Amino acid sequence: MSENNPAPTMKDVAREAGVALGTVSKVINGLPVGESYRIRVEEAVAKLNYRVNSYAKGLKTNKTYTVAVMVPNLISPFFAKLADCINRSLARRKHRMLFYATDYDHNQEQEYVILAEQQKVDGIICLSYNPDLKVSENIPLVSIDRYFGGQIPCVSSDNYGGGRIAAEKLVENGCRSLAFMRIGSSVTNEPNKRKDGFINACEAMGVPYTLKIVDDGTPYSAFEDFLREHTHKGKLDFDGIFCVTDSLAYQILRTLRQMGIRVPEDVQIIGFDGTRHFGDQDFFCSTIVQPLEEIAETCVSMILEKPLGKAPSLICLPVQYACGGTTKS
Amino acid sequence: MSENNPAPTMKDVAREAGVALGTVSKVINGLPVGESYRIRVEEAVAKLNYRVNSYAKGLKTNKTYTVAVMVPNLISPFFAKLADCINRSLARRKHRMLFYATDYDHNQEQEYVILAEQQKVDGIICLSYNPDLKVSENIPLVSIDRYFGGQIPCVSSDNYGGGRIAAEKLVENGCRSLAFMRIGSSVTNEPNKRKDGFINACEAMGVPYTLKIVDDGTPYSAFEDFLREHTHKGKLDFDGIFCVTDSLAYQILRTLRQMGIRVPEDVQIIGFDGTRHFGDQDFFCSTIVQPLEEIAETCVSMILEKPLGKAPSLICLPVQYACGGTTKS
Repeated sequence: MSENNPAPTMKDVAREAGVALGTVSKVINGLPVGESYRIRVEEAVAKLNYRVNSYAKGLKTNKTYTVAVMVPNLISPFFAKLADCINRSLARRKHRMLFYATDYDHNQEQEYVILAEQQKVDGIICLSYNPDLKVSENIPLVSIDRYFGGQIPCVSSDNYGGGRIAAEKLVENGCRSLAFMRIGSSVTNEPNKRKDGFINACEAMGVPYTLKIVDDGTPYSAFEDFLREHTHKGKLDFDGIFCVTDSLAYQILRTLRQMGIRVPEDVQIIGFDGTRHFGDQDFFCSTIVQPLEEIAETCVSMILEKPLGKAPSLICLPVQYACGGTTKS
Repeated sequence: MSENNPAPTMKDVAREAGVALGTVSKVINGLPVGESYRIRVEEAVAKLNYRVNSYAKGLKTNKTYTVAVMVPNLISPFFAKLADCINRSLARRKHRMLFYATDYDHNQEQEYVILAEQQKVDGIICLSYNPDLKVSENIPLVSIDRYFGGQIPCVSSDNYGGGRIAAEKLVENGCRSLAFMRIGSSVTNEPNKRKDGFINACEAMGVPYTLKIVDDGTPYSAFEDFLREHTHKGKLDFDGIFCVTDSLAYQILRTLRQMGIRVPEDVQIIGFDGTRHFGDQDFFCSTIVQPLEEIAETCVSMILEKPLGKAPSLICLPVQYACGGTTKS
């Protein structure tokens, strides 16, 4: 269809309005022109249904009002909600989101950073799993959850604080022996501090704890084996479990039910993330809620508003506990 | 940082390689040049770390390798997975996704269509709730789930077939009296055919059925009232329920459990969508699974590969039943 009916250009508007091309340009870019000229141009724009070519505009202003957002996928409710929040935060500032799913693939992440640079985005917000990610000096980049050594600002939840809160809440709820379970990337990243905060709180309170930590790629059955090893006469060795994510907590919950262990009567479970059914209903489990809207807002404002030279290297935003039925309160 | 170290331009490459600007342009656009020239340009590109300015390229080729994708949000797991599948389908064809969340807002949807046109996208894929959406003739648009009268191709699951399958499966599983529950937009759209298919199958089998249909905005308690009205001496009037979405099925399931009615022993439930916990684990309920990957692939190939003049007005892709614990099989 576009062959028969090409989009009108700025020249067509100038011809229709009977003014110079420069006058059309001024009106479109909000620069002052005589009132009668402005009206003639606006009428011609309306009549021809002229749309500003934002690519031509991007070429001139060197600003594209576009930010690239890279997360592993939109299948995980956590990444989907994060992308949703970033998109809203960008839209409020009249910026648009170019979305890339990286699938945790290091090469893919690197390629997308290069591609984003080619595409002259105004900035990149990424949740990367590539510890060696090379970024350009020409484009501001903010990292979520991965600390790249201070040159690149990193925004994250207060993971350490969240680990402490989880341990303290379990003990407050009557637990006397705790366990921490983690599956995840072995690369140093901010979420690993959940464990550190948990251990710190356990030691401060003098409460015994057990750790079960496995790397990505380990089959889930490693946790089933761990739970069975720690079950004697139908009773678990611990009465409180902190899981590194709600997703893991959900799986642990299911395994415990299959083993005939009651939650929260026999053992209480706290996850991390704040995932809800269908995005807006019950929590999957009692959990430490990440402040995704604030994380998104912080990343976007760092990209668009603050000079990166003065940016802090790490910003941790406060988390909070929410009861979701797998704890006594 | 960019002030001190501006990105190299095509001119810089020409100077470095000692060739004319036109030669650089030919190499970058894959046009034939002498081998020694090609090597000199490629070496200069690598040395200067030159990136093609895709905005300049978009302006020349009138192609931006960008497709706008509009869905209400990424909070709903259904929309998030759909966006994920479309993004993957675009990435396989080296296209990128500009993402817009419309929040079911008619004005917002219309504004994004205009914006996408301004931004010279190669096409628009939208899941719209605006029955009066005006689209440009200049940009191919494919609609998901909303039929706009034939000028705009619509891609959807076989909703009618899915409704039939749900009714037939419940009866096959021993149900003798069925109910259909729907909350949703009253605007005519493809998902409304779930009800039609359900009714058609019930009537063909001679099985009695009850309908409870409410519009968006009605509080969920309307369904609780309906369930209580149809409960006599702790027993429901029907033994099979088909819900228009998995999200509604999840809520109904919770209400029934609170009422002391057992699922699937006393009543069996089938939802629609194929939503899974955390995107990759158990189904929330027995369900009619929408073929999201095929829907995404079809939309993308219609935008990028097929001339829209010959496109069908409606394409329905086959669904299938999956047992998720809320039915006997």
